[in-house]
Amino acid sequence: MSSHSYPMNSGDDQHSYVHNSSYQKSGINGAEEKIRKWILETLNLKLNSGLNTFKIADFGCSVGPNTFQVVQGIIDTVKYKHLKENNETSLVPLEFQVFFNDQPNNDFNTLFRTLPPSSKREYFSVGVPGSFYGRVLPRNSIHIGHTSYTTHWLSKLPENVCDKKSPAWNKIYILCNDLIEEVSKAYKVQFIKDMGVFLEARAEELVPGGLMIVLGQCLPDGVPMYETWQGHVADTLGDCLMDMAKSGITSEEKIELFSIPLYFPQFSEVKGEIEQNGSFMIEIMETIGHPMEVKALTNDFLTSTYRAFLSTLIEEHFGDGVVDELFDRLAKKLSKHPIDFEMWKTQVVYYGVLKRKSIWGE
Amino acid sequence: MSSHSYPMNSGDDQHSYVHNSSYQKSGINGAEEKIRKWILETLNLKLNSGLNTFKIADFGCSVGPNTFQVVQGIIDTVKYKHLKENNETSLVPLEFQVFFNDQPNNDFNTLFRTLPPSSKREYFSVGVPGSFYGRVLPRNSIHIGHTSYTTHWLSKLPENVCDKKSPAWNKIYILCNDLIEEVSKAYKVQFIKDMGVFLEARAEELVPGGLMIVLGQCLPDGVPMYETWQGHVADTLGDCLMDMAKSGITSEEKIELFSIPLYFPQFSEVKGEIEQNGSFMIEIMETIGHPMEVKALTNDFLTSTYRAFLSTLIEEHFGDGVVDELFDRLAKKLSKHPIDFEMWKTQVVYYGVLKRKSIWGE
Repeated sequence: MSSHSYPMNSGDDQHSYVHNSSYQKSGINGAEEKIRKWILETLNLKLNSGLNTFKIADFGCSVGPNTFQVVQGIIDTVKYKHLKENNETSLVPLEFQVFFNDQPNNDFNTLFRTLPPSSKREYFSVGVPGSFYGRVLPRNSIHIGHTSYTTHWLSKLPENVCDKKSPAWNKIYILCNDLIEEVSKAYKVQFIKDMGVFLEARAEELVPGGLMIVLGQCLPDGVPMYETWQGHVADTLGDCLMDMAKSGITSEEKIELFSIPLYFPQFSEVKGEIEQNGSFMIEIMETIGHPMEVKALTNDFLTSTYRAFLSTLIEEHFGDGVVDELFDRLAKKLSKHPIDFEMWKTQVVYYGVLKRKSIWGE
Repeated sequence: MSSHSYPMNSGDDQHSYVHNSSYQKSGINGAEEKIRKWILETLNLKLNSGLNTFKIADFGCSVGPNTFQVVQGIIDTVKYKHLKENNETSLVPLEFQVFFNDQPNNDFNTLFRTLPPSSKREYFSVGVPGSFYGRVLPRNSIHIGHTSYTTHWLSKLPENVCDKKSPAWNKIYILCNDLIEEVSKAYKVQFIKDMGVFLEARAEELVPGGLMIVLGQCLPDGVPMYETWQGHVADTLGDCLMDMAKSGITSEEKIELFSIPLYFPQFSEVKGEIEQNGSFMIEIMETIGHPMEVKALTNDFLTSTYRAFLSTLIEEHFGDGVVDELFDRLAKKLSKHPIDFEMWKTQVVYYGVLKRKSIWGE
């Protein structure tokens, strides 16, 4: 399939995703205990009888360290449950194999070189290059799938949002901030298409009864993006680009043809798509507040976080040498006009534990 | 485990293994038809009943393109056999999953980015980072394993070959050229240890009845390395280093402490180790001449081939800036004293198709 891909910043220097993914980590941590509880309650370990290898996949793993933490959490939970349910010592202990999936241009070299040392790692690890908007693994081959902070990346830019003649043109905005209804509609159409493909592929790859854990950021129902501080930071980044156009560093024309294929759905949109798809039973799906305290969201922190996950895309469109200047300007603007977190609404974290239905629909 | 690793030259520039692996490719091609025949004859496809995913692993795959060719050849053969034996159309077609294994510092990014496009690729591909001198995959998870041009790389330098006080000291030679008996013995001890670990790990990873294809370069029985042109090129490379020491570019001391963990066993040593290990039935194992004609072995070709597979190691020991000069000198020396291929003996290609014995020893 021809989906685009926008890898997180590679390598492990100061601007890399490796060192700038603690916002995502904190979101994952917040849901971890709840997910653990639901795995214990809903996983059927008999799925795996006779196979002796328990297989876990992280779809859209990026380069760590978050993926290693997530995977270890799942393994600890499965081992705990396995031990509790098998009082007799089995002759052959359970082996774990973990499939780390991301786009072929993800930095797998860094991922592999930063794996926990094999002496401390209780699993065999493999990398799976390929877009998760499509099949990347054989049928019925995964017992627990996981994805976090991924499906807000669309497989491609929605139709017409960069077409100046279309009512869905996103003007000078850099992502879907819900200020233009036709733009929101175009983004939503693409999101629904992508989620459908994602769920269809995972339904084939998971064994019947297997669990799919989904986690990410979304808007509370009824809250438009422009009312959140996350939308405000994006709009501020757009303002910085416009300032740079005025200084001749880039052009307004270029900004008008730029829009990020990033869509934060409202909670009921995500849940609705899973219900609509029908391959999975929703064991639990709910939202929680992001556990990071607002006082931790300093200007520096926000600048680094946005830089690590947007710079590849910005460089691709605006060319070399724009990224440093842009994020310097963002940092300055944020420190001149600090975000009043009391005033803005905020996105929330959603998590869900889904069970792959068997052919009998259970 | 703490094995060292010496990846082939990464990336895809003029000196990369990607562009300088045709000698290995030719060796593989020479045995391909024979291996195909033995797979058809000895593979039991009922192994896979109910699973629907046929799993292939290439151990020590490096960065392609050879590994893609090998894998495609195996898949074509399995599909042909599967089709012939299943006249009825099965409801669910066979899916293939290929495990590309190499050291964690192998250039997996290049490997993944040069995979055949997914539209033309009939298999799901994954990368498996880890030394094949140890387990890298779960028990009973592979139907056909393959390794070519790999196990001549030892897991580490044999004991004492860089110890000036030891009788096994390899003096100024850069690899085991069989001129010093104690050195050959030390290399052989390490080779036997490594082959044992390799076979033990593969025996666990392959399903009973699964096939392991081994292919590589070895010495004909009774022929020492120094009598072959391959040994002669290595010795010439050593001479170039000594010349560079005389010019002050490196030091004799450094050369005396350098030896490459590369060992080309005699044919009966490889075969003997497989018999000794006992986990595999040898369906076929024999040697063939390397199919590349000597007139194709130009000085440029030899220089590039040796450079692509030795430069990482040389740079690690001698530091930056030595590699270019060294291989320039090798090219010059070879053109001044062309190799008389009639005069020198040569290594041969061995290939073997091994079947994992079941617990009943069949």
